[in-house]
Amino acid sequence: MGLMGCLQEFGFPGRIYPINPNATEIGGLKAYPDLVSVPEPIDLVLITVPVPAVPEALEDCIASGNKNVHIFTAGFKETGEEEGIRLEKEIEEIARKGGLRVVGPNCMGLYVPAARLVTWVPAPVESGPVAFVTQSGGHAGDYANYAAQFGVHFSKVISYGNALTLDSTDFLEYLAVDPETRIITMYLEGIKDGGKLIRQVKEINRAKPVIICKGGLTESGAGAVASHTGSLAGSEAVWSAFFKQTGAVEASSLEEMAEVALAFLHLSPPRGRRVAIIGTGGGVGVAGADTCAREGLEVPALNFETRKELRSFIPPAGNSIRNPLDVEVVFGDLGLLERTLDLVSADSLIDMLIIDLHLQWLDNLSPGSHIEKLAIYLAGSAKEHSHGKPLVVSWRLWRNDFALESARARLEAELIQAGIPVYRGLSRASRALAKLVGYYQFQEASSPIGSMVSGTEHHLPGGV
Amino acid sequence: MGLMGCLQEFGFPGRIYPINPNATEIGGLKAYPDLVSVPEPIDLVLITVPVPAVPEALEDCIASGNKNVHIFTAGFKETGEEEGIRLEKEIEEIARKGGLRVVGPNCMGLYVPAARLVTWVPAPVESGPVAFVTQSGGHAGDYANYAAQFGVHFSKVISYGNALTLDSTDFLEYLAVDPETRIITMYLEGIKDGGKLIRQVKEINRAKPVIICKGGLTESGAGAVASHTGSLAGSEAVWSAFFKQTGAVEASSLEEMAEVALAFLHLSPPRGRRVAIIGTGGGVGVAGADTCAREGLEVPALNFETRKELRSFIPPAGNSIRNPLDVEVVFGDLGLLERTLDLVSADSLIDMLIIDLHLQWLDNLSPGSHIEKLAIYLAGSAKEHSHGKPLVVSWRLWRNDFALESARARLEAELIQAGIPVYRGLSRASRALAKLVGYYQFQEASSPIGSMVSGTEHHLPGGV
Repeated sequence: MGLMGCLQEFGFPGRIYPINPNATEIGGLKAYPDLVSVPEPIDLVLITVPVPAVPEALEDCIASGNKNVHIFTAGFKETGEEEGIRLEKEIEEIARKGGLRVVGPNCMGLYVPAARLVTWVPAPVESGPVAFVTQSGGHAGDYANYAAQFGVHFSKVISYGNALTLDSTDFLEYLAVDPETRIITMYLEGIKDGGKLIRQVKEINRAKPVIICKGGLTESGAGAVASHTGSLAGSEAVWSAFFKQTGAVEASSLEEMAEVALAFLHLSPPRGRRVAIIGTGGGVGVAGADTCAREGLEVPALNFETRKELRSFIPPAGNSIRNPLDVEVVFGDLGLLERTLDLVSADSLIDMLIIDLHLQWLDNLSPGSHIEKLAIYLAGSAKEHSHGKPLVVSWRLWRNDFALESARARLEAELIQAGIPVYRGLSRASRALAKLVGYYQFQEASSPIGSMVSGTEHHLPGGV
Repeated sequence: MGLMGCLQEFGFPGRIYPINPNATEIGGLKAYPDLVSVPEPIDLVLITVPVPAVPEALEDCIASGNKNVHIFTAGFKETGEEEGIRLEKEIEEIARKGGLRVVGPNCMGLYVPAARLVTWVPAPVESGPVAFVTQSGGHAGDYANYAAQFGVHFSKVISYGNALTLDSTDFLEYLAVDPETRIITMYLEGIKDGGKLIRQVKEINRAKPVIICKGGLTESGAGAVASHTGSLAGSEAVWSAFFKQTGAVEASSLEEMAEVALAFLHLSPPRGRRVAIIGTGGGVGVAGADTCAREGLEVPALNFETRKELRSFIPPAGNSIRNPLDVEVVFGDLGLLERTLDLVSADSLIDMLIIDLHLQWLDNLSPGSHIEKLAIYLAGSAKEHSHGKPLVVSWRLWRNDFALESARARLEAELIQAGIPVYRGLSRASRALAKLVGYYQFQEASSPIGSMVSGTEHHLPGGV
């Protein structure tokens, strides 16, 4: 589907002017030979002509006084070939000379669901408080679609490819003050003004968490970056220093970035790194404890008093009230689950909770209904019984089973609706919590009343 | 469902003798008051009586001369409570005195699909060349069910819990010579005779890859191990030395262990660490290169001649023939895909191949049919065009979409049927390949004709 079709299908309410010197009508709309002939100013010019025709199209933008441009066309410096590099230099000169604000080239441009602006299908129609700034066009749709499954929706998604005149720092400047954006996520390959990025992220991050997935941190990855957006990736050491200095939250993949954004979307700041895991299965408990520890979370034993009270209704055989709690008996009885939740979350040694669900095992308790019963309970009551401490749910499912998959989908929908982050597996859940607590601890440590952090400043490529 | 029900439902063809002094018939079978009253020797005694009755049940085994015992019952030393610890000591004395071979207590015992022997439902009915030795009972079913989705089936699964008289080393002794077992996978929490394990694994690993997931490597995890099977977990440093000395393949989770086993099941030894990725999407290519590099694989640029030939039918705009190859144009035309596969796999700089599929994007090419067309092509022809080099497929899907999920399931089934390992996402694929190559490189380096490896021997808990 062409760009115009995407806009029309998404219900774009504004006027669309197709530009083509060889047509009088395109897609039911009157076509114009050039921008100069269009009877009114254009808010955004989308350029999809072949590479050699891009310079002329930009000249037309300048001549008509339309300065906001998205160049969709690929085939410039990212090809690594002489002609592409030359043409990119040429269009950069034209754009700078004419004062054009260019998103691209080699990118998907803007996805703004509230404005029904999009260049790809299918796109979620919902809006939300998360922004995404990405150098990869493919990532724009993939990430937005993936995140939407968890109720993470977007204010603005900006795919900007080769960053001809507008770079990530320009978009950040806008998002920092955009009232519709509360959380900023980014996929970066390279950066032109590293010093500016450091200063910006440091500042913005105090008010709006900035979560960044950096591509090309290895040598092989940096090579791939060069042929993707023609960017200089920068070394892993330099970027590691960037994260340390700015407190930006690092995500190692798009999936992880969406999962971390989900945690920021719904959870209040945790007081510390100590997590309780309430679930079933001893081996899984071991894996859960290992996973949390690797992510830098603590899984402390509960207070003596808590354990004593838990022991009054949880028998020792087949159950463990050590943390992780392996408490099969309480998952069959929601009253016992509530008592457990109350006691564990009230424990002074615990800052956060994970409820870990083994869906197949739960379904066995009452096939076809128990997972739903539990979902409704958790969505309706779990937050009231967690003493204001961040609570997330993780689930695992070891079999391909249509009925169980459906039950899982309903469980996720219920929880998301109730504002409870839900994750496939304990490691995703614990990683998201670790990132959340890391962010708030950095903010606390670097606030004027917190302890001061100092050290050598590191420079990003192009940095001051 | 009780143990007897599981056996009956799984179609166990042998005779079952229920033992219960208070019943004359159980589940349609004649019940006996004790083992001594049973008219013939018993191959395997399954004990599920409550904890306090276990000692007497063991005495009955001894009195009747039935020495093969599985104690299902939990509530012994893993409770960490005085009474449980005392009772475990008591049953250990009885078992040793009577020369009993005990699997357990606190475990699921044996799953042998070929013998229709199982203690849980649902269990895959297929047999295969992979064995699984596990200290966690929950892991037995979870892992077997998960692996079965990828066509990884089992010769024997042994869940042995607290390891009263038989420990992992005893089961290894058996599996080393079991003709039905070609690959050994293990979930270990602790080990009684560490020296024996080192010697055994070193030896067995030469002929049968030993893949181990070790639980409790962190302090929190070790605590969970203590309350799960009452084992001493041992430090991460000690186990790291174990893997270095023995060449056992380390898996960090059950999922990873199944995914690695899948690679061993179908792939021939790679000649080196250099991988080519053929896929679509520039950002994904960057992530793929980063992921492979982190796993210790190389993603080298292809030979000049290969690139020249690829460039003859792959245009530069929107495609990259650098490795990872981002070649949208060839995924729409199976003839071009075959030419690409032929050229890339013939390249002397490449040892292994990953074909990476973006399912939603592929489906857009021809909704409802392109994924299937591709699946049939890959299953039927891809191996013939990969010059004998290991080939795996990875896929990603960013949306919940029933039709796409179904297409994905059919794709996986086709590939598995054809003996092509298939993974969700490039990171799983590259990790499995990295483990595969790591195994063969260790074997080569430690073979009499390879370079000799020497160093300080490290000791596991209980090791010599």
